[in-house]
Formats: sequence, structure tokens, C-alpha cells
Amino acid sequence: MTYCVALQLNEGLVFAADTRTNAGVDYVTAYGKIHVFEPSDDRLFVLLSAGNLAITTELVDTLRRDLAEDAHHPMLQAKYPFEVARSIGELSRQIQDRHVGALGAAGVSGEVTLILGGEIRGAEHELFLIYPQGNYISASPETPYLQIGESKYGKPMLDRILRCDTSLEDGARLALVSLDATVRSNVTVGAPFDLAIYRKNSFALAHNERIQTSSAFYSEFRESWESGINAAFRGLPPFDWERSQTS
Amino acid sequence: MTYCVALQLNEGLVFAADTRTNAGVDYVTAYGKIHVFEPSDDRLFVLLSAGNLAITTELVDTLRRDLAEDAHHPMLQAKYPFEVARSIGELSRQIQDRHVGALGAAGVSGEVTLILGGEIRGAEHELFLIYPQGNYISASPETPYLQIGESKYGKPMLDRILRCDTSLEDGARLALVSLDATVRSNVTVGAPFDLAIYRKNSFALAHNERIQTSSAFYSEFRESWESGINAAFRGLPPFDWERSQTS
Repeated sequence: MTYCVALQLNEGLVFAADTRTNAGVDYVTAYGKIHVFEPSDDRLFVLLSAGNLAITTELVDTLRRDLAEDAHHPMLQAKYPFEVARSIGELSRQIQDRHVGALGAAGVSGEVTLILGGEIRGAEHELFLIYPQGNYISASPETPYLQIGESKYGKPMLDRILRCDTSLEDGARLALVSLDATVRSNVTVGAPFDLAIYRKNSFALAHNERIQTSSAFYSEFRESWESGINAAFRGLPPFDWERSQTS
Repeated sequence: MTYCVALQLNEGLVFAADTRTNAGVDYVTAYGKIHVFEPSDDRLFVLLSAGNLAITTELVDTLRRDLAEDAHHPMLQAKYPFEVARSIGELSRQIQDRHVGALGAAGVSGEVTLILGGEIRGAEHELFLIYPQGNYISASPETPYLQIGESKYGKPMLDRILRCDTSLEDGARLALVSLDATVRSNVTVGAPFDLAIYRKNSFALAHNERIQTSSAFYSEFRESWESGINAAFRGLPPFDWERSQTS
């Protein structure tokens, strides 16, 4: 399994992902799921992947080759970010289609779900979720985040806290909170975490880090959240019957 | 959909459930999902249900009739709580089996998943999850809660906070936190909430309440949790690069 989350904020974009990949429960490895594309100075794209690892690998390899070989590639030529989402969706579907027969016969799903984020000079920075079928949706001011993979455990805190005007650093902290909730509840999602931050109009990543749970920062982070949650819990009001007992 | 959660604590048992039932997305109604059985002075059982409403209804009706008509009913005669879980599992499977043909032809699932909790004098208070297939598992000191229905959104806070020695009132607050996270993320789970508290060796419910989200208590509760979470979030440590910027 996988958990990736991306935020579309006024200041830019935040991407976060776990690194665990498993083929069955007895073959667990670590793979980066954040793929960065900087095809020219006026555009940057980040691709997050969940689903079949081989299909994802072929997709990323193909994309990188095509970008190197074809000066008219949509990722280089597109004026609108959605055109890039559409072309990656199409490529993803083509690769899946080529493998679906053999994979189906082996009882394996070849589906891949992607998040694409980025900016092209002259257009707004934007975030897309690309379905296995190749079509896509975008994030919105009402729902300024997208998730793929094991998304449920990490959703409540996003719903409570995230807003478009959340800062990039707070957004990154929130993404880690969301990841932390997920790895606690699903062992097929696992640390370390990858975190990438893009400030709009910069056309380069401000940060692209691997966060080890053994790091001083993450230990402090987790402890702080744990104690903050416990304080919030202790502050909850008594039930009516408890009040009448004590009064 | 449904979300029910039950806690097995040193002091006793806590049961909580939403009340929303839907047949498709365009027929939404409210039903209680907490069913209380007090067959004699030395035993009490609480049954929570998720799944096909008609199967659940027939199951509860049949149980109540059999209890009234049969002085040797397992729920009356059992010395060990698991015997009650086993007999309810068997009844559930029988009723499902009788309907599976017609339901399957209509493309409807007849599955019902149950939580049974209670105490028989001379045995420990206990909690069971009864699968649609009729078999069961019990809660444990390591996992002192059971969930049925839409369980993922409400799980992280249980994992963070709940322990066997959590008090009944704190357990009830935690169950509401868990429900609140779920209704925010899944519209087919909805308020009001039913909450039942059983103190061990009492053989009667200490509380059995319907909590309206419009109540003064719940408004205060939700506001307190929201502001506590936000305070916990604001207290999270800066990233290393933020520290170096400010120093």
C-alpha cells in the first residue's frame, strides 16, 4: 500500500509520501514515490504514485525518455497544466492496457493512481489526481488537498485544519500529521517520509527531504503532537451527568 | 453506512453508534443501532449492528421472541459470554442464509456485522465482534476496542489515546471524538449519536443517551476539541530549515 498527500495552497504546493512498497505481506521494500520533473526553466512538475510499482516504473522511465528525446513533448510545450495531466493520464492508460492481460491472468491489478502538481509560467500552480482510467480531477479552494492510496486514516486532520491560506511550512507539518496517523493504523504504509515543498513562481523545489522517524526533528514532532492531542482530550467538557454529580 | 465503536475498559464497557441508515444515496433515515438485552438480573448484553437493516431487524426481533418464549435460551443459560456470541453468530448466519438467494439476485448484500458486549455474573465483562459468517473475535488488553462499519476515519484517535485503564467517562468522550471524525468525512454516517455506558458488576446501564449535535453539551464538546487540536497543531516544532532562518 501507499499513502501520498498533496496540498494546493495560496503560497504554493506541498507533497508528502511514505516509502513502503510491498508485494504480498512477505516482500516489503522502500521506494521513493515522489518524482520531480524540471523540463525547462519556466515549468516544474511533481508526480506522486500509488498502485502497481512496475507500471509506475515504466511510466516514469517512459516520461523521462520522451522528455529527453522529444522537444515537442506536452510536458515541454503545454501552456496549461491540465494538458500535462491529460497526457500523463493517457500514457498511464496505454501502459496499463499493454499489461492488463498478463496481469489479470496472474490475478494482479495493474492500476496506478497519480497526483500531478506543478506550475507553468503564465498559469497558476495546480494539483491534479489522475485516475487509473486516465481521466483527472483537480484540487479546489474548498478541497485544497488530494490523496492517493490509504487515504482514510489521514483525512480527518486535513479536514479540520487545512485552508488555502495555510502556510507552506504549516502545510508540510499537517502532511506529516496525516502520514503519522496512517502509518500507525496500516503497516503497509511506512516511514521514512518524503516531503517536497514548492513555492509558487520559483520553478524549483524549496525543499525536497527524506524524513527519518529516528531524526531529532521527527521525535520532537511526534512527541509534541502526542502530548498536544492528549491535552486537547483532557480539556473536553464533562457530560451533563458528571456536572450534576460534582455540583 | 454505519459507524459503531465499543470499548472494553477495566471499569466496564462503552458503546457508541451513529444513527444514519441509507438505502442508496436518496433514501436516508435514522435508526437506533444499539440494542439492549436484560434477560435476567445477573446478566446484561448490548448488541451493535452494521450492515443490512432488514437482516438486523429480523435478527433482533427473533432474539427478543426466543428470549421471551424459551427459558433455556443461551442468552439466559450461558455461563460464559462467548457462548452468547456464538449463538448470536449462528442465528445471524441462519437468517442471512435464508435471504442470500433473493438478495443476491437483486444485487444486494445481506451481510450483517455485530458487536456484542456484556457481562454474566461470575464471568468478566467482555466484548465480541461477530462476523457476517457467524464466527467472532474478542477485544483484548492490547486492543481494547472494536469497530464495525466505516471504521478508518475514527481509528487514529482510539490508537493514540485509549488504554484499558481509561475511565468510562473518558472512554465515552473518546468514542464521541471518534464518531465526530467519521461523520465529517463520510456523509453516510450521521448524527445524532447513541451512547451507552455499562459499569461492571452493575447489570444495568449507567447511561443510555441520544446525543443531538444541536445540544449545548455537544456544541461545547466539538468546539473544545476543535480548538484543542488547533492548539496542538500550532505547538508543533519548526523544521530544521526554519530554525536556521530565524537564528
